[in-house]
Amino acid sequence: MTTTTTSPFAVDVDAARERIDAALRDFLRDKACGEAELRLPADVTDAVREFLEAGGKRVRPLFCVLGWLAAGGRGIPPEVVRVAAALEMFHAAVLIHDDIIDDSDTRRDRPTVHRAVGTDAAILIGDFALAWSGELLHTAGLSAERLAGVLPIVDAMRCEVDYGQYLDLITTGRPTRDLDRAFEIIRYKTAAYTVERPLQVGAAVAQAGPEVRRALSGYARPLGEAFQLQDDLLGVFGDPARTGKSNLEDLRSGKHTVLLALALRRADARQEQRLCALVGDPELDERGAAECRDLLATLARDQVEQMIRNRWLRAQRALTEAPFPPAAAAALRRFADALAVRSV
Amino acid sequence: MTTTTTSPFAVDVDAARERIDAALRDFLRDKACGEAELRLPADVTDAVREFLEAGGKRVRPLFCVLGWLAAGGRGIPPEVVRVAAALEMFHAAVLIHDDIIDDSDTRRDRPTVHRAVGTDAAILIGDFALAWSGELLHTAGLSAERLAGVLPIVDAMRCEVDYGQYLDLITTGRPTRDLDRAFEIIRYKTAAYTVERPLQVGAAVAQAGPEVRRALSGYARPLGEAFQLQDDLLGVFGDPARTGKSNLEDLRSGKHTVLLALALRRADARQEQRLCALVGDPELDERGAAECRDLLATLARDQVEQMIRNRWLRAQRALTEAPFPPAAAAALRRFADALAVRSV
Repeated sequence: MTTTTTSPFAVDVDAARERIDAALRDFLRDKACGEAELRLPADVTDAVREFLEAGGKRVRPLFCVLGWLAAGGRGIPPEVVRVAAALEMFHAAVLIHDDIIDDSDTRRDRPTVHRAVGTDAAILIGDFALAWSGELLHTAGLSAERLAGVLPIVDAMRCEVDYGQYLDLITTGRPTRDLDRAFEIIRYKTAAYTVERPLQVGAAVAQAGPEVRRALSGYARPLGEAFQLQDDLLGVFGDPARTGKSNLEDLRSGKHTVLLALALRRADARQEQRLCALVGDPELDERGAAECRDLLATLARDQVEQMIRNRWLRAQRALTEAPFPPAAAAALRRFADALAVRSV
Repeated sequence: MTTTTTSPFAVDVDAARERIDAALRDFLRDKACGEAELRLPADVTDAVREFLEAGGKRVRPLFCVLGWLAAGGRGIPPEVVRVAAALEMFHAAVLIHDDIIDDSDTRRDRPTVHRAVGTDAAILIGDFALAWSGELLHTAGLSAERLAGVLPIVDAMRCEVDYGQYLDLITTGRPTRDLDRAFEIIRYKTAAYTVERPLQVGAAVAQAGPEVRRALSGYARPLGEAFQLQDDLLGVFGDPARTGKSNLEDLRSGKHTVLLALALRRADARQEQRLCALVGDPELDERGAAECRDLLATLARDQVEQMIRNRWLRAQRALTEAPFPPAAAAALRRFADALAVRSV
């Protein structure tokens, strides 16, 4: 993520990220004190803190801050930082449960939570993070009116990401040519959840009007799709040493992606037979994965990269027409570059 | 649960329960319509609806309604019904995840959700129910002020039940003489969650003052403990045909209960050796279970029953001094009878 600040009026994204992390740390420290008083084991706060400290780009909380600024919010007051932190805590919960469902071994270069503490405890630790996300939001210091404005967006976001994960679950292992379905998964699981909803949450704290909200969606929807398309490429072609994620798991599980749907649409009979034999094979080895990568690169990679570029362009164009303060627009422009053209 | 209404001024608990169920049905019907429009599978709403329709006493939402009435709320307006329904939706989420953790086969005389749809889908269905619980609450029609008064109580409740389940998880299979720990589990997992917090939620909607809140806690805490102590007895001595739950699972998993802690404290060396050999054996058969039941009945059942009676008395006594309207106090009295001295 680009964080160079070239003007004194620019948004200091690094400083915002540090404040978000500090808010998460403070919250968990208070929880740990409460646990000790109540003779409760420290395992739960430890697990969540270690998960958060292990990494993550803080994309969603930073979009929340940028939504606030795009809607004309002045400075970055503590309540906005805490609302942003609530989104990151929610994201931790989603990933902890998602890793159980995907049976992933590693996340952020470390064992996933359920590998470290067992599935049963990991379900509960995810539930704790969900509850704490609500608590961070409700105790952010927003007026009752502003909080009431934010809650419907958070509720919609929660529902969307659950639907996205559910679609992901029921399609994984059964890849098809269904491109519409692959885009539906992207929209629910990522586009709304990663970009549009966090921006809307920040804008709602600033009590943004309909013009700002529409402009944010015009930027967020194509960018969110570009982000997930890029993520799918990295899941297959990425360097695990850089991404911190396996580049075998998506192939082994047979994740239904736009990349795969496009490849199946364009494959001849022999290529289709090979792809169907290899993708979704839980025992797929490096050699088989290399054959998959060759096929996917031949059949669909260029087209997915073109889709990413088109969406990136639409996001950039939306910014030129948006009624955002210049510093916010500049930061959103840098985010679009960083998210759509990233290697981690 | 006693539901006979003898006076025109009495609380019609049956009618309240029907309205709560209707609110849940209406909410899920709307969600199902939305799903169909969005080309989403109906599995999720179906699973949650079937779970809710399969049974459940609606204890928590009814306590919410009674908290409202105890605090002087007039009638039972639709927003109170919907807040109450949110608590039942939350409870569904807790049970769906809890059944995964306990590896339970049946609930309410039917296969548990994870047995029916698989663990991965059941984790997500629990997450959906959590999200929907929030949505039911936030869209109940409360003013922003009243909603802001309810949220801290719901947040505390969520955290408490998660802690209770976590303590349950880490102690199960390792039963000890630690009576304090057994009571801590009861307080977190059940007493606050089932009685005190729902009453407080209803009272917060009515913007109750400190006197009412204190009186509610004086009734709720002993009753919540009595409820769980009775539940533990039913988990071992209950008739599965009546309770809808196995009377073997608690023994096989080695659940850390007050009953078991007391028995271990009073056991002689031979009895202790037998209990430790039998309780927590996942293969425990009916004959072994019968031996357990005999030992637990000899060593601790009377004392647990006495504890239940003492707590029931304290709850009843608290009511005589409480500043509640007579109809609410009468309904709370009947609830205390029904919960502490029940066979299902």
